[in-house]
Amino acid sequence: MKKLLLTGFEPFLNFKLNPTMEVVKHLDGSSINGYEVITRVLPVDFSTSGKELLNAIDETKPDAIVSLGLAGGRTKVTPERIAINCNDGGEPDNNGRIPSGEPIVEGGSDGLFSTLPVREMVSKLKEKGYPAEISNSAGTYLCNHVMYQALNFVEQQGQRIPAGFIHIPASHELAIEHGKVPSWSQTDLNEAVRVCLACIKDET
Amino acid sequence: MKKLLLTGFEPFLNFKLNPTMEVVKHLDGSSINGYEVITRVLPVDFSTSGKELLNAIDETKPDAIVSLGLAGGRTKVTPERIAINCNDGGEPDNNGRIPSGEPIVEGGSDGLFSTLPVREMVSKLKEKGYPAEISNSAGTYLCNHVMYQALNFVEQQGQRIPAGFIHIPASHELAIEHGKVPSWSQTDLNEAVRVCLACIKDET
Amino acid sequence: MKKLLLTGFEPFLNFKLNPTMEVVKHLDGSSINGYEVITRVLPVDFSTSGKELLNAIDETKPDAIVSLGLAGGRTKVTPERIAINCNDGGEPDNNGRIPSGEPIVEGGSDGLFSTLPVREMVSKLKEKGYPAEISNSAGTYLCNHVMYQALNFVEQQGQRIPAGFIHIPASHELAIEHGKVPSWSQTDLNEAVRVCLACIKDET
Amino acid sequence: MKKLLLTGFEPFLNFKLNPTMEVVKHLDGSSINGYEVITRVLPVDFSTSGKELLNAIDETKPDAIVSLGLAGGRTKVTPERIAINCNDGGEPDNNGRIPSGEPIVEGGSDGLFSTLPVREMVSKLKEKGYPAEISNSAGTYLCNHVMYQALNFVEQQGQRIPAGFIHIPASHELAIEHGKVPSWSQTDLNEAVRVCLACIKDET
Repeated sequence: MKKLLLTGFEPFLNFKLNPTMEVVKHLDGSSINGYEVITRVLPVDFSTSGKELLNAIDETKPDAIVSLGLAGGRTKVTPERIAINCNDGGEPDNNGRIPSGEPIVEGGSDGLFSTLPVREMVSKLKEKGYPAEISNSAGTYLCNHVMYQALNFVEQQGQRIPAGFIHIPASHELAIEHGKVPSWSQTDLNEAVRVCLACIKDET
Repeated sequence: MKKLLLTGFEPFLNFKLNPTMEVVKHLDGSSINGYEVITRVLPVDFSTSGKELLNAIDETKPDAIVSLGLAGGRTKVTPERIAINCNDGGEPDNNGRIPSGEPIVEGGSDGLFSTLPVREMVSKLKEKGYPAEISNSAGTYLCNHVMYQALNFVEQQGQRIPAGFIHIPASHELAIEHGKVPSWSQTDLNEAVRVCLACIKDET
Repeated sequence: MKKLLLTGFEPFLNFKLNPTMEVVKHLDGSSINGYEVITRVLPVDFSTSGKELLNAIDETKPDAIVSLGLAGGRTKVTPERIAINCNDGGEPDNNGRIPSGEPIVEGGSDGLFSTLPVREMVSKLKEKGYPAEISNSAGTYLCNHVMYQALNFVEQQGQRIPAGFIHIPASHELAIEHGKVPSWSQTDLNEAVRVCLACIKDET
Repeated sequence: MKKLLLTGFEPFLNFKLNPTMEVVKHLDGSSINGYEVITRVLPVDFSTSGKELLNAIDETKPDAIVSLGLAGGRTKVTPERIAINCNDGGEPDNNGRIPSGEPIVEGGSDGLFSTLPVREMVSKLKEKGYPAEISNSAGTYLCNHVMYQALNFVEQQGQRIPAGFIHIPASHELAIEHGKVPSWSQTDLNEAVRVCLACIKDET
């Protein structure tokens, strides 16, 4: 059976929990469209998150890579279109590091498009009753960092496997804690990510 | 058994469906905390919505009155604190009428506080996992209009029964149709309104 | 010459400066439409702001009362339509006090409409090139508190002088400091308030 | 004297005027930091805007290229970090064409970083009192299209001149017309763009 590496993130900034951890836990070990889902939770740390992702890829030899991130403030599930070669944004990671616009990979491409079927994901999500939209920016914080690392790995390796990033809204639980973000139930988030993963095929 | 009159609204403006209609349908005839739920769907029309509400009150002799409205753009369930004696806002009703700041009831109070247990509703919603907050304005469109009519009736009648208004977010279905509003699943909306109704007691 | 009492507020919460202080300073002593402008800056404190306003009214015997407040997040100048008899909102004042839904004046009206010409203010602002809109809620924090105190005084006193509240957007200076609020130049804020004051006449 | 080609756009979608046209008119012919400013207004049309820009470059042989666009909804001046090789977004251009995710330049890079000094622009804007921030997405509509065309030209040509895109907020005039967008005075917009252009130097 093919393997799909699915990653979430630990909590960060003033978000006291991260619904991607719940999604990852919920889908760990499940079988979706011919893929076995293997999961990891990544640190929100510029110096280690990329390495941990690449190590996980090395260990698991996945046939597809999907990373999840929380987009506090967004109202839809948003597969990301592109990762850009830049760490920036003015917010510290969980280790206190604030990047200042430096490249993630020296000499890497300015941008790398997702190799996930982002259009199909959005169509299928809406068909299944979940608001969705392609996003044109994963920011310049850890989400973009991890997405760029995965896509750069895929490009370097020459074998174009499906890889990319999906941002999800806050969960109701997080919204109650945080006070000011749009939210979905965790159940909706779990199911919406499952719908996305079910769109992945070899030939994308 | 006591009776609770629960109203929703038909679709309006550029919202092609109205999730309050689904909530009302879902809860119609149910029994909540000693109240039988009787429902109506009101027109979005300044000249008839108030009359239809007052007629429904006359017909059903309710022990509590709760009206629901869609707040496209809000991310939480928001029990309203106050209705104000004013039709305004620049948007036409479904009959094309645009009010211009006139009173709803000539000589009525400027504002009338909800007699629903709005603080308890918010606490209970959050306890049950639904983001919630008291709202300080139901606007000056049909939602406020209907709320003011109910509270003015209660005040005139002298018997202080629980009465008021609760705004709910868009449903996922509406958000997919409309494109740009935060949303919850219809299931979450249905359940959240049930949680609110379960907070109503005689002595509020 | 008639006297107009114009108040601003000191900084509060995480807003490190308050553009209403600059407006008040800018307009202090000026003569607008037959009114001499007398100004005060009020504390953001539930226990003293109302008293300071009433003392200022007692000292200056104004023919009109206009209070200004910062609405961090709004994009327009918004004359407020109504003040409500409630201190609430979950945010501490500058003295650390968090109110919990209690009335401002025991036995006072639930709501009191502004006696300022709010519609004319909005029309004139737009005519002069400043985005504007009537607001239906001054919240339940200090802005509403001070507005209610002034309107309650006017109602008690029986002499219906023009009195009310105008919320203004953040200034560019504050937006740069704070990071995330819409803003206007201080010059635009100063001029827009002058346009509002010029709409006030005895017979409103 | 060196030449700087500055472009704006005509009105589009439901925005009835475009403040970039005013900025361009205001700065046309001026001399900023050793550059003479030459201007054009581009059509909001996927099939002609790129050609018109490239023709203007061919005619004027500029030493720097800056395109301006309206970002209805943004509250700051936002120099764009990157253009991406994609026409998309679901909105029609002024000729009714709705793209569906196709590349702007077949075989072009996925993304191309701005060669403007975007960090310096943001610092200088804030220093001068204008809220500013680097944006990580110019979208996939005409703004990104024109930015990508310019950067692709610069890359093909091999001579790395300063080129890129700056999004500006709505003007007060547009906000009054449109109803719901944050805005600055046209004077502020004109001056803020001048501040940006003054940051451009050969060696960036």
